[in-house]
Amino acid sequence: MKIVIIGADAAGMSAASRIRRNRPDFEVHVLERTTDVSFSACNMPYNIADPSRSMDDLIVRSAAAFQKQGIHLYLGHEALSIDRARRKVEGKTVDGKIVSFPYDRLLIATGASAKKPRIPGIDAPGVLVLRHLEDGRGIKSWLASRNPGHVAILGMGYIALEMAEALVSRGIRVSMIKPGPLLLPDMARQLAQVIQSELESKGVALHPGVPIEAIEHSADGIQVMGQEGFRLSADGLLCATGVIPNSALAATAGIRLGVQNAIETDALLRTSDPFIYAAGDCADALHIVSRKKVWIPLALRANRAGWAAADAMCGNPKAVDGIAGTAVFKVFDLEVAKTGLSRKEAEQAGFDPVEIVIESRSRAHAYPGGCPIWVNLLADRESAMILGGQIVGKEGAAHRINAIAVALHVGMTVFQFYQTDLAYAPPFSPVWDPMLTAANQLMKALAGGAA
Amino acid sequence: MKIVIIGADAAGMSAASRIRRNRPDFEVHVLERTTDVSFSACNMPYNIADPSRSMDDLIVRSAAAFQKQGIHLYLGHEALSIDRARRKVEGKTVDGKIVSFPYDRLLIATGASAKKPRIPGIDAPGVLVLRHLEDGRGIKSWLASRNPGHVAILGMGYIALEMAEALVSRGIRVSMIKPGPLLLPDMARQLAQVIQSELESKGVALHPGVPIEAIEHSADGIQVMGQEGFRLSADGLLCATGVIPNSALAATAGIRLGVQNAIETDALLRTSDPFIYAAGDCADALHIVSRKKVWIPLALRANRAGWAAADAMCGNPKAVDGIAGTAVFKVFDLEVAKTGLSRKEAEQAGFDPVEIVIESRSRAHAYPGGCPIWVNLLADRESAMILGGQIVGKEGAAHRINAIAVALHVGMTVFQFYQTDLAYAPPFSPVWDPMLTAANQLMKALAGGAA
Repeated sequence: MKIVIIGADAAGMSAASRIRRNRPDFEVHVLERTTDVSFSACNMPYNIADPSRSMDDLIVRSAAAFQKQGIHLYLGHEALSIDRARRKVEGKTVDGKIVSFPYDRLLIATGASAKKPRIPGIDAPGVLVLRHLEDGRGIKSWLASRNPGHVAILGMGYIALEMAEALVSRGIRVSMIKPGPLLLPDMARQLAQVIQSELESKGVALHPGVPIEAIEHSADGIQVMGQEGFRLSADGLLCATGVIPNSALAATAGIRLGVQNAIETDALLRTSDPFIYAAGDCADALHIVSRKKVWIPLALRANRAGWAAADAMCGNPKAVDGIAGTAVFKVFDLEVAKTGLSRKEAEQAGFDPVEIVIESRSRAHAYPGGCPIWVNLLADRESAMILGGQIVGKEGAAHRINAIAVALHVGMTVFQFYQTDLAYAPPFSPVWDPMLTAANQLMKALAGGAA
Repeated sequence: MKIVIIGADAAGMSAASRIRRNRPDFEVHVLERTTDVSFSACNMPYNIADPSRSMDDLIVRSAAAFQKQGIHLYLGHEALSIDRARRKVEGKTVDGKIVSFPYDRLLIATGASAKKPRIPGIDAPGVLVLRHLEDGRGIKSWLASRNPGHVAILGMGYIALEMAEALVSRGIRVSMIKPGPLLLPDMARQLAQVIQSELESKGVALHPGVPIEAIEHSADGIQVMGQEGFRLSADGLLCATGVIPNSALAATAGIRLGVQNAIETDALLRTSDPFIYAAGDCADALHIVSRKKVWIPLALRANRAGWAAADAMCGNPKAVDGIAGTAVFKVFDLEVAKTGLSRKEAEQAGFDPVEIVIESRSRAHAYPGGCPIWVNLLADRESAMILGGQIVGKEGAAHRINAIAVALHVGMTVFQFYQTDLAYAPPFSPVWDPMLTAANQLMKALAGGAA
């Protein structure tokens, strides 16, 4: 059996390794456009924060280690087309040589790319993106050579926020701009306000509600021109306005795309072509709360889907569960965590959400060093099923969210969750964990008919 | 309706407050033997660590605040007997005056007491216990006046370990002794070893496997005499060998006791007498994994049971779920967490447990400052249902355990848990959270038939 994999990052290499472990008799061929394999993209902002560290620190496992495992790894090989009738992938090398890889089973693990808005000047020098390791290297060498005093960031998502922290930690002034009016529109307003205050306290200038019309580049740096006369000059502009799935190759081959143009897959990671699988940031997933297909590219899912695709291709299919969209990030001294649906997402999914926000403490009242923690929790009015949760605080937010994520996977009601025996000791929590306090308030809101 | 409550700590005062909120027309009378109400006993070791803090910092809510709420609070009133036929409690005041409280409903919330082993000399001066606020005050004033250089601790449970940390932080040398051969026998051995190494690295001398025969007291301090010639001299001895439920009052009145002499209760906190309820450390609970009655006195349960008893007495009964026995504690730089059953407890409950221990990291490999974290997870061989988990590490152990606790409440299998979408970001976790790595290993162990 000959397996071809397009893309050598989390999903692709997880699959490649697992196939070799499952079935040493299978041939595995991996095509990778760049020369980097299996790197920790999520770690790039923290690496960029530290001038002394090499970007290669982020390589989780080297190409040589994979090759030693018997995986045929073709670096600098870009897949150009999939001939589904003849079951082969056509590609070209960095030298322009045309290559062809026949397959019995194909895994598309092409990931996602930075999405750049269509603005005049967006491709000018001094406009940077961060997605691949080569982007990270580019940013680091730009920082080292330019030594900027002020960087603008387009976008206020979690990559943008992590990069704001990284740049501030290098002594660089940061201004953030986005067209939409709200910081983190999927967060409960009270929690987003906590994050906004944290950013402002660290000197980050926030400019929401500014549609950008053009970017101008000169020897002095860049100038961002927004509506209503907005002007902002900086040494450079980081464009962190989200990502899009790399699904064009699949689409051109007639493979069905789904939500947000991600490749449509089932619980065994099969595409609409029975010989072709897709996994990672290029593929969709089922949301465990809405039971609808979503595209939420995150690292754990990519790794898990890579393994599941490998098992399925090896003839040992095991369905993957859906995702809760659990995401955490750190922004300066704050931990920010979210799982499941926001209120707006819940409404869009057809629920009638009842939502509360509580403020509690990270530690018992008499234990030194505690700090405020905010919990947002929402449930469906009729069924009382928990739909999602968000937590923000200087400590204890990131790991707490996992308890709510587990509850989402089993469709727990808030009444059931309120009964759970969560951990208490003064250094870690009040007697009633903030999540239980939130559950109690949510039960009251459900009973009172309040929203 | 006249409600009488015996005991003014977590369970008793939670109930008293809730009754007044639910039913302002109900009379609530609370008898308390000491003069302290509603204090955070769990916080005492941390208070003792800091000579500058008053023990009164640990009072969660003052007697005056409760009285303002219309609660009739009788401090220095000890309940002596319950006349179930006439529905009244007989007691005496600190001055020896006999008092009588008729009730329509009675809540017994008498808590637990420090258990002292029967050893000659155990009641000598210089032998201290820690259970009530007055014990804490006694220890603090003893430390201040005696200024000890060396304290022995009898017992190695979590109170003993928290006190070891508190004393070491005050510059006092600590020696710990216990008759049994193992530190924390309910923990997986590999995790207990991590804790033992931490204690030893902080200079705590551990003497397990030493049955004590006598304690001698002199002007120089105390001497602990163990079997086989064991001798240990110290300025004082803290006896932290566990607690027993304060159930004698109930037993004498003919109320049924259950496991470990705790008062037997149902899911509405009713005792065998339909007019009498029990809640808190004096009462038993159902274990959600073994479905057997257990006595695991912990603060969250006491508060929750107090509320539930109040609701039931107010004619609005809501069953409480069982407990997972979730417990966390800090010992020096380590977080230690446990939920559900240990391997031995699982075997005793009739399961056929398969158990694994993994070592992972608290943060992503390339993120600075991470440290090792150990996870123990066990499941039933036949059903694959998770039976319990334990986590030890310098960070991220305490809050992680909640995800496993929630899984226990819904009887999740390890296969289902492995599919949960847990949080990942480099500052907080590897891509595969250590709990998922543990689940993966446990699935392999289940498949392989290994133990």
